[in-house]
Amino acid sequence: MTAFPLPPGSVIGILGGGQLGRMSALAAARLGYACHIFAPDLDSPGMQVAAHRTVAAYEDRAALARFAASVAVVTFEFENVPAAALEALAGLVPCRPGLAALATCQDRAAEKAFLDRIGVPVAPWRLVESEADLTAAVAALGLPAVLKTTRMGYDGRGQAVLRDAMDLAPAFARLGPKPLVLEAFVPFAAELSAIAARGADGTIAVFDPVENRHAHHILDLSFAPARVPAAVADAARAHAAAVADGLDLVGIVALELFLLPDGRLLGNEIAPRPHNSGHWTMDACAASQFEQHIRAVAGLPLAAPDRHHDAVMRNLIGPEGLDAWPRLLRMGQVVPHLYGKAEARAGRKMGHANRLLPHGSLAKLTDKAALGEL
Amino acid sequence: MTAFPLPPGSVIGILGGGQLGRMSALAAARLGYACHIFAPDLDSPGMQVAAHRTVAAYEDRAALARFAASVAVVTFEFENVPAAALEALAGLVPCRPGLAALATCQDRAAEKAFLDRIGVPVAPWRLVESEADLTAAVAALGLPAVLKTTRMGYDGRGQAVLRDAMDLAPAFARLGPKPLVLEAFVPFAAELSAIAARGADGTIAVFDPVENRHAHHILDLSFAPARVPAAVADAARAHAAAVADGLDLVGIVALELFLLPDGRLLGNEIAPRPHNSGHWTMDACAASQFEQHIRAVAGLPLAAPDRHHDAVMRNLIGPEGLDAWPRLLRMGQVVPHLYGKAEARAGRKMGHANRLLPHGSLAKLTDKAALGEL
Repeated sequence: MTAFPLPPGSVIGILGGGQLGRMSALAAARLGYACHIFAPDLDSPGMQVAAHRTVAAYEDRAALARFAASVAVVTFEFENVPAAALEALAGLVPCRPGLAALATCQDRAAEKAFLDRIGVPVAPWRLVESEADLTAAVAALGLPAVLKTTRMGYDGRGQAVLRDAMDLAPAFARLGPKPLVLEAFVPFAAELSAIAARGADGTIAVFDPVENRHAHHILDLSFAPARVPAAVADAARAHAAAVADGLDLVGIVALELFLLPDGRLLGNEIAPRPHNSGHWTMDACAASQFEQHIRAVAGLPLAAPDRHHDAVMRNLIGPEGLDAWPRLLRMGQVVPHLYGKAEARAGRKMGHANRLLPHGSLAKLTDKAALGEL
Repeated sequence: MTAFPLPPGSVIGILGGGQLGRMSALAAARLGYACHIFAPDLDSPGMQVAAHRTVAAYEDRAALARFAASVAVVTFEFENVPAAALEALAGLVPCRPGLAALATCQDRAAEKAFLDRIGVPVAPWRLVESEADLTAAVAALGLPAVLKTTRMGYDGRGQAVLRDAMDLAPAFARLGPKPLVLEAFVPFAAELSAIAARGADGTIAVFDPVENRHAHHILDLSFAPARVPAAVADAARAHAAAVADGLDLVGIVALELFLLPDGRLLGNEIAPRPHNSGHWTMDACAASQFEQHIRAVAGLPLAAPDRHHDAVMRNLIGPEGLDAWPRLLRMGQVVPHLYGKAEARAGRKMGHANRLLPHGSLAKLTDKAALGEL
């Protein structure tokens, strides 16, 4: 039986061995916990910093049972854990976040229905199970529109932009599994995100919302805090808090938002885990998103989410990202982070770098000035 | 053959599995390196976050050879590594810091002779090989005076305060191995320390000197920066830089100093490794002492040692230290660190906590105000 808060020395199980698991494990170590990482590949970033390791498939029930028996609590570094693995674990050991929160975030249609239900506005959308549904949905929402899978989409995978009636049939045929979701195209002014942690006692702490820039559908830059009116930032914070509450979450959740030209915010995606757009917190806050996540999972009080610096985060992607490394190491007030990945394939997130700026200075800077040599 | 700077993914060997090795390994992970920790005990703080582990005695030549073959470079988390282990490793793999620097710091007499030679003032001292030497030394330096072993002393172990002629014989009999060192008693106003990193290219970066308070001969508090005149801080920085240069160090070195009532500084001890009095850098600088150490060892450029916050560091020692943990977790702008030690024995360093204060604010604060609830 696990008693919360976890005493120092407890073992936290993390499902997934990527960089989010790695940085969570590093934060757990600072808090005096040992981590046990379960992932299919020994050569993964998280394994390198874990006290205990299980290399097994997520379908390996015996390995999952041994894992569950060896840890005080289980958390996840990605939300697309196979449902059967989740259910097996949930019967054996506390899982934070829990099954219901993960299930909502694994399914784009469930996610949108959830956002509708808790009052976070979303772009008009329709569930698409057949070509006839798609035709009807396009008639309702207009073109352009974006057709997306409901499951396993990330970094722009599993989606197609429909610009013309001729795009419908091929996109429907290509994307799967069904059902799909059609979303009205949103001519947004900016993409924001807000990250909320929620403790077991329901306490919520939200980091300052940030402005994100993508390149080739992958996050490239985050500007923290977002250069938006205070009312917009407050609304983003409130939406993230509502998501954390609505999911009855114990852990951390990132809410991606579209900022419309008229100042309204639309909820886009929810990730119930540390998020790439929160990496700036590692150097610009006393406690990072990873520490908040571990605090929540361990039943510790959350830290104050105050920002002591403004920051710009740049992802280091593929071989080019790694090439920037020596230059970044020479820059003052730039903090580089690498994930220990063996091979720098194109499009692969190899690390990130945070440029620290004086608190309150970002609002007056252009992108170019904020980036500097980053 | 190791080529510097080490490319990401390289393996750094660390001799020693204590908290300094653990925090060095965490810093190495952030820089994209994997660590291989060699220590006699699997249940040690560093092992929990190391990608590779060797559990063996420092005298195990075969294990040392396998360790050397598996890493690109070796560093140390404590300077009292057995000389034979050092020599075995140094023939097989680059060691940073090198043998000569470690040898100087392993021997209190060699250390003092070195400080004399590079022009860092030290308290008057004499080498004591016999009781007759001790009598002569006391005649020269007066009483009170402090008799110390030349090797393996730390946290007040291996020393005796001589107040009276009757103290001489018992202290000489008790302390060993010989020779010993007699030091004149220094009526210091404060204990300071300064930590310098030195890269392979000779570049030096010195963190701001700090003020240290001990309790029961163990570091209790560090105040960063030291509340001393700028000329004193500059002298402390210059002394630490001279030590790093004089040792031809590649790595990091802490110089403990006594501040006399008249403003003069006397060098006390040198530790060629990350130091307890530098733990404040983990949260108050963009790059910590551990990151500087790893940067130096890996042949990377050093980071700017700028302080972005003032800070007070409190060691969490023994069961009482651990008892403070829940309270510290609830405090704003306090960053707690635990070392993952299984058992909270009396006097054991279990962790530390950094209280962050606005930059420049500490100078105006009393100890009590600076500590707050820490």
